[in-house]
Amino acid sequence: MSLFRPAIDRTAAYVPGEQPQESGWVKLNTNENPYPPSPRVGEAVAAAMGRLNIYPDPLGTSFRKAVAELFDLDADWIIPANGSDENLTMLLRTFVDPGDVVLSPYPSYILYETLAGLQDGRYERLVLNPDWSWDFEAIAPRVAAARLVFVPNPNSPSGNRWSDEDLLKLLPPQGVLVVDEAYGDFCDVPHRMELLQRPEGKRIVVTRTLSKSYSLAGLRLGFAIAHPELIAGMRKVKESYNCDGLALAGGEAAIRDQPWMLDNRARILATRGRLTTQLRAVGFDVVNSQANFVWATHPAGGHKAIYEHLKAHKVLVRYMRFPDARAGANGDAALVDGLRITVGTDPQVDRFLEVLATRPA
Amino acid sequence: MSLFRPAIDRTAAYVPGEQPQESGWVKLNTNENPYPPSPRVGEAVAAAMGRLNIYPDPLGTSFRKAVAELFDLDADWIIPANGSDENLTMLLRTFVDPGDVVLSPYPSYILYETLAGLQDGRYERLVLNPDWSWDFEAIAPRVAAARLVFVPNPNSPSGNRWSDEDLLKLLPPQGVLVVDEAYGDFCDVPHRMELLQRPEGKRIVVTRTLSKSYSLAGLRLGFAIAHPELIAGMRKVKESYNCDGLALAGGEAAIRDQPWMLDNRARILATRGRLTTQLRAVGFDVVNSQANFVWATHPAGGHKAIYEHLKAHKVLVRYMRFPDARAGANGDAALVDGLRITVGTDPQVDRFLEVLATRPA
Repeated sequence: MSLFRPAIDRTAAYVPGEQPQESGWVKLNTNENPYPPSPRVGEAVAAAMGRLNIYPDPLGTSFRKAVAELFDLDADWIIPANGSDENLTMLLRTFVDPGDVVLSPYPSYILYETLAGLQDGRYERLVLNPDWSWDFEAIAPRVAAARLVFVPNPNSPSGNRWSDEDLLKLLPPQGVLVVDEAYGDFCDVPHRMELLQRPEGKRIVVTRTLSKSYSLAGLRLGFAIAHPELIAGMRKVKESYNCDGLALAGGEAAIRDQPWMLDNRARILATRGRLTTQLRAVGFDVVNSQANFVWATHPAGGHKAIYEHLKAHKVLVRYMRFPDARAGANGDAALVDGLRITVGTDPQVDRFLEVLATRPA
Repeated sequence: MSLFRPAIDRTAAYVPGEQPQESGWVKLNTNENPYPPSPRVGEAVAAAMGRLNIYPDPLGTSFRKAVAELFDLDADWIIPANGSDENLTMLLRTFVDPGDVVLSPYPSYILYETLAGLQDGRYERLVLNPDWSWDFEAIAPRVAAARLVFVPNPNSPSGNRWSDEDLLKLLPPQGVLVVDEAYGDFCDVPHRMELLQRPEGKRIVVTRTLSKSYSLAGLRLGFAIAHPELIAGMRKVKESYNCDGLALAGGEAAIRDQPWMLDNRARILATRGRLTTQLRAVGFDVVNSQANFVWATHPAGGHKAIYEHLKAHKVLVRYMRFPDARAGANGDAALVDGLRITVGTDPQVDRFLEVLATRPA
């Protein structure tokens, strides 16, 4: 007899992207920001060190205020999380009982499926068209029956962004839509939580993270924005002290230094353009990205071999494979695989392109 | 129709101890360590600041090694957690399905009940005898049917510690016993994970935190120790990056500086003895504590008023009330209330005793 819940026995552990702890890698595989966080983060962390023996503020009041000011909202619209992953888990534990239908697009971030399984939700994929658009006619009945729909926007691995009009069609009439804006700051025109201001906004949650645009993946800090009634339910699930004192202090400093974040963002958008152009110049298909990564495929395939060639030269990108994706109109195989390449610094991207050019035919 | 799970609607949010964020308080209410953490923590955190833009090691390998060496175990016996609270949630999500029986002693840490409710477990109290011992005859059938039993050892609010012999009687034959040793380092003779070495040890999990003995409540770092087979299941539930890079680095430095922790522990044990003696001298009943707090009751009652008098003078202790506790042999009312007082510095304890002495009759 297993001691574990059946859901645990049948779940394969989620495997995060490789995180080599030694130096020397050009690391373009987990969408980290190649630039350091604002120097004010270090100052705020140093100042908070003197209070380490004391519990942090359970509600993260000061951090929430900074976020609220940024989006012109009241602080009770904000809940802090120990990274976006915890945010997603909190949402499942707030809204999903065993058997409740949980949806997310496919190909997309596969963690949604793992987390829904751990919560015993009935997870189903919304298979995207080959051009990353929705087949609304096919999915409408499932959206109608859903309890929770996760939509990363921009999507990963593709980097495309869907319109608010599209998102509203994914809002379940008896449930909640979670718009995961982990990469939201990298859009050409970032969202300003416009969706939440609509009448339907009371059933929409937007999640954000400081891991990407604020260069703080190592600090574990994210937040959700939603109507205070939804936040009140999520608070019951939240661990009392889910965010540590250093993260709250450092995160607040990062949020309050918008020019620093926007400068790094501008650099990344410029490099993204160059990377896209240069990949296309050597024959790759590249989705127009609104995120800090690009999705590249080659008509000749061989993506796994390219990944391995790069890795052998200490350049890490993400090889991703999505079986059972939808076939293209021209009869492409119903299996999407490709390379997701984080937009690093210009020298990192140069090194990537250099090694890419040396791959065996 | 509520958008929330029924478990959320019927759960009252857990209310942690008051955390005034302004200074000037003598804070003896949440069992924080009054002494600062090892200076090596600050050095390790500063050194880790340069890697904040990168995700932390998902497995916390280096931190786990330090813990493993401390307890003479292999690192695969250890899983890191974002504080003890996350540890408890991970355990529930690993082992408890809706309707599974979850037990913990009463009066004790009430968070177990809240967390079990969020997981839809069938929570039941194991009501302790008035002298904080177990009524094994009465509880045996419930232990036999349990999936998970939480036992804080030392217990809170009483501070007493149960023997390994007692604990083995609380191990459910088809389930898991969690021994929550948040206060374990403050025992006169701390445990060295002896229970895990026994044949029954394969179904026992010990949880620890760095919040108390290592003065790191603000850093949010704990760990569980168990047979690698149990740890493997818990890993599936763990968020990939549940512990941030600063916490892992700082926590490892704290674990590796045992003399610092042991010096603070020795100070706290000395002050605990003095606090106990002086409270008894002014008429309080005080349990012999094996933790960094004492549980004090007065035959004349009036505990709430004493708490309020102290608070009015900026001395915070924890007033706790446990309705439906078991009546004493002498016909005491079946309601335990009293004061849980953290062992602070000597000056803090002096101030507490001074204000206590001025309370109205």
